[in-house]
Amino acid sequence: MTAAVTTGLAELYAQVHQFYARHFHLLDEGDARAWAETFTPDGWFWPAVLPEPVRGREALIAGVRETHARLAAAGEQHRHWHGMVHIEPVDEDTVAVRCYAQIFAIPAGGPARLQMHCVCEDVLVRAGHGWQVRQRRVQRDDLR
Amino acid sequence: MTAAVTTGLAELYAQVHQFYARHFHLLDEGDARAWAETFTPDGWFWPAVLPEPVRGREALIAGVRETHARLAAAGEQHRHWHGMVHIEPVDEDTVAVRCYAQIFAIPAGGPARLQMHCVCEDVLVRAGHGWQVRQRRVQRDDLR
Amino acid sequence: MTAAVTTGLAELYAQVHQFYARHFHLLDEGDARAWAETFTPDGWFWPAVLPEPVRGREALIAGVRETHARLAAAGEQHRHWHGMVHIEPVDEDTVAVRCYAQIFAIPAGGPARLQMHCVCEDVLVRAGHGWQVRQRRVQRDDLR
Repeated sequence: MTAAVTTGLAELYAQVHQFYARHFHLLDEGDARAWAETFTPDGWFWPAVLPEPVRGREALIAGVRETHARLAAAGEQHRHWHGMVHIEPVDEDTVAVRCYAQIFAIPAGGPARLQMHCVCEDVLVRAGHGWQVRQRRVQRDDLR
Repeated sequence: MTAAVTTGLAELYAQVHQFYARHFHLLDEGDARAWAETFTPDGWFWPAVLPEPVRGREALIAGVRETHARLAAAGEQHRHWHGMVHIEPVDEDTVAVRCYAQIFAIPAGGPARLQMHCVCEDVLVRAGHGWQVRQRRVQRDDLR
Repeated sequence: MTAAVTTGLAELYAQVHQFYARHFHLLDEGDARAWAETFTPDGWFWPAVLPEPVRGREALIAGVRETHARLAAAGEQHRHWHGMVHIEPVDEDTVAVRCYAQIFAIPAGGPARLQMHCVCEDVLVRAGHGWQVRQRRVQRDDLR
């Protein structure tokens, strides 16, 4: 019995999209701790350009803070879009997602630009009424 | 008891996205009156660049007509995308939305370009089987 | 009685988006045959720049293979996004969709760019637990 069977695809679909919206609003606002808490305590994020994953909340927080300091110095904001989201229920409390990801960079004064296009593969697990990221692999399309 | 409790997040999620799709199809086609009717009679739209909101349907219609005349003269079309939509039920008939908004400009002959990236905060209220905008605040990311 | 009545808008909404996600993941990975099988056997795809539709799976496969050979030679990838999706149930097993479509081109080494913005009108029909495209009309916004 899969999550889709017991929860219904529609409910899963809405929950996952609500999760991503809040998850990236937090990241883009630079709320490093709240964002890190949308990962499981042992959750990891593996951009394909790194030799190994960024693992655990303290490492995730440090990464966000470094990126935001760099963006602030450059007078830019980032905006993350996830789209074309395909959800595969794994078990009652786990889904595997494959989706596209865009990062837009918006300098003060404009214009906004598409910074990069990626393919993202997540494993999400239930946490109370919501979800958390247990694993994330991201591949930049310009580096394939 | 919230709208999510009685309607279900999935149903709300689908209704709000259907609403936005039609709402922006109307705007982008220049159907000013039909678009204005997707606002409540006293609904308002407040781009952060203006000192006060554009309030009421006649003002909304006038704004669309002016923009479309300008775009037609320039040989351009606009396309609005809402994404990363986070829905917060307020009461049975009201939801608060925070989402990202993109406006693409497509000149005849191309190429299409991302004109601006914004953060949009809406208050939507039920109207029959659908929804209407009661309040919209939009902040351009290039002007922060 | 419409599909929305018996299936529920939320379920339809999630199914159609899951369908589009997989459909474009297949196309963008160049899996020509699997992508063609997301059309009905007599399904067609009519870009407004062609005098008549590309009809049937063999023609669809040939088109994908030609495009992918060209992209590979140019060192580029394409990524398709469907968004602002409006779903109109036609009958129990048929929905009409109007949505926006973006094609991003990502050359090796970057940067990614928005190649074109289109309006897409699909007729989707049920096929087992999923959906297939029976008709697709696509209008490029830069050629209007």
